[in-house]
Amino acid sequence: MQTDLQALVFDVFGTVVDWRSGVTREVAQFTQACGLEDKIDPAAFADTWRSHYAPAMQEVRAGRRPFTRLDILHRENLEKTLQSHGVTPSALPADALDQLNLAWHRLDPWPDSVAGLTQLKAHYIIAPLSNGNIRLMLDMAKRAALPWDAILGAETAQAYKPSPEAYLRTADILGLAPEQIAMVAAHNNDLAAARRCGLKTAFVARPAEHGPQQKTDLVAEDDWDVVATDMIDLARKLTGSF
Amino acid sequence: MQTDLQALVFDVFGTVVDWRSGVTREVAQFTQACGLEDKIDPAAFADTWRSHYAPAMQEVRAGRRPFTRLDILHRENLEKTLQSHGVTPSALPADALDQLNLAWHRLDPWPDSVAGLTQLKAHYIIAPLSNGNIRLMLDMAKRAALPWDAILGAETAQAYKPSPEAYLRTADILGLAPEQIAMVAAHNNDLAAARRCGLKTAFVARPAEHGPQQKTDLVAEDDWDVVATDMIDLARKLTGSF
Repeated sequence: MQTDLQALVFDVFGTVVDWRSGVTREVAQFTQACGLEDKIDPAAFADTWRSHYAPAMQEVRAGRRPFTRLDILHRENLEKTLQSHGVTPSALPADALDQLNLAWHRLDPWPDSVAGLTQLKAHYIIAPLSNGNIRLMLDMAKRAALPWDAILGAETAQAYKPSPEAYLRTADILGLAPEQIAMVAAHNNDLAAARRCGLKTAFVARPAEHGPQQKTDLVAEDDWDVVATDMIDLARKLTGSF
Repeated sequence: MQTDLQALVFDVFGTVVDWRSGVTREVAQFTQACGLEDKIDPAAFADTWRSHYAPAMQEVRAGRRPFTRLDILHRENLEKTLQSHGVTPSALPADALDQLNLAWHRLDPWPDSVAGLTQLKAHYIIAPLSNGNIRLMLDMAKRAALPWDAILGAETAQAYKPSPEAYLRTADILGLAPEQIAMVAAHNNDLAAARRCGLKTAFVARPAEHGPQQKTDLVAEDDWDVVATDMIDLARKLTGSF
């Protein structure tokens, strides 16, 4: 990794926080409160809800829909997920659905995330470059003490990863050349898109993101500039040369 | 102040940081390095530089120029200021001008700002709503330990205060109604514009912002929702009711 590196931008869902455990926990509370335990398995519901994520953003990326923040896409996807589990959304209190939708704001970091980010912040600008919207990232950071220097990402760039604009507009906002920034992610496709834009790349393995049966992104699938086992290992590898 | 208040957004130049002392200090270093002590009085230079601020933004607000971030306007205004002091910008090293332009990134907070913001952060979302661009606000916060939850403002909203869009788009990004947000500023005109958009208003007196001869914004000129002597007093007034 070159020494002119100035900023680290992070994927968040899966890389910094454990979305599956957090959403599963909140779905379980919701099903109990609404008497839906027989119809909904919380972990399977979380996986289905997440499966609607990429297609919903693809509508924006393909230009078929104006930029729409993730809270709104998550809310639409929640209704689709309920329907596919045989539950009619309009039969439930809207407040309960709105609260469940905020599960994505209340995700816990992986155990190493806060310590690693805190170490990295002493050497670099650190900011999320997530598809999550600003308020979502803000609530998550405030609750979990994620020490971001700023909240960047899809809403600020008005473009969803892996569109090049998401990476390049973020570099422009930071006043940096792409090669002065490293994208940190647990997802090989995110790093591949960042590299195509000229950013440096750091892979952090999160083999439990999708639960015990995970089959994708178990290892670095290209020669990323840094490969780390967790965020503390990343801090050791990126700051050890100083 | 109603109890549904969720977020505080802050003017920064003058309200949170002392721009005049900081810019004066950096201009003094610049004039010594470039041998311009005879031509430039640092404090007068800082005042002239700042005087070009509002007219430059007015070009954007009036629609005669696309949104252009403040770092670029500051750099243009620096050249105008040098010329009006009888100095030809192109005769100076571009690096020296670029460095001087970053003086706005290296301003010190007023002595009460960090303590007051830290107290307020425990009760509210806190974010700048400044005309300064994201990288400027980020560098300032990182250097001075300003504990923002996110960096919002003109660049995120793509509109300069006091345009209504600057306030209303910020409310939209926060997912809040305008009345759930208070604008905190040392400038009566900023608060007036925020109030027209439905935000709550908090005046913090900064009678030394413009130096010992300050004649404007010495006192609250309307019945703002809160009037405070400094940021710690604001924290006392806003959190005392909890």
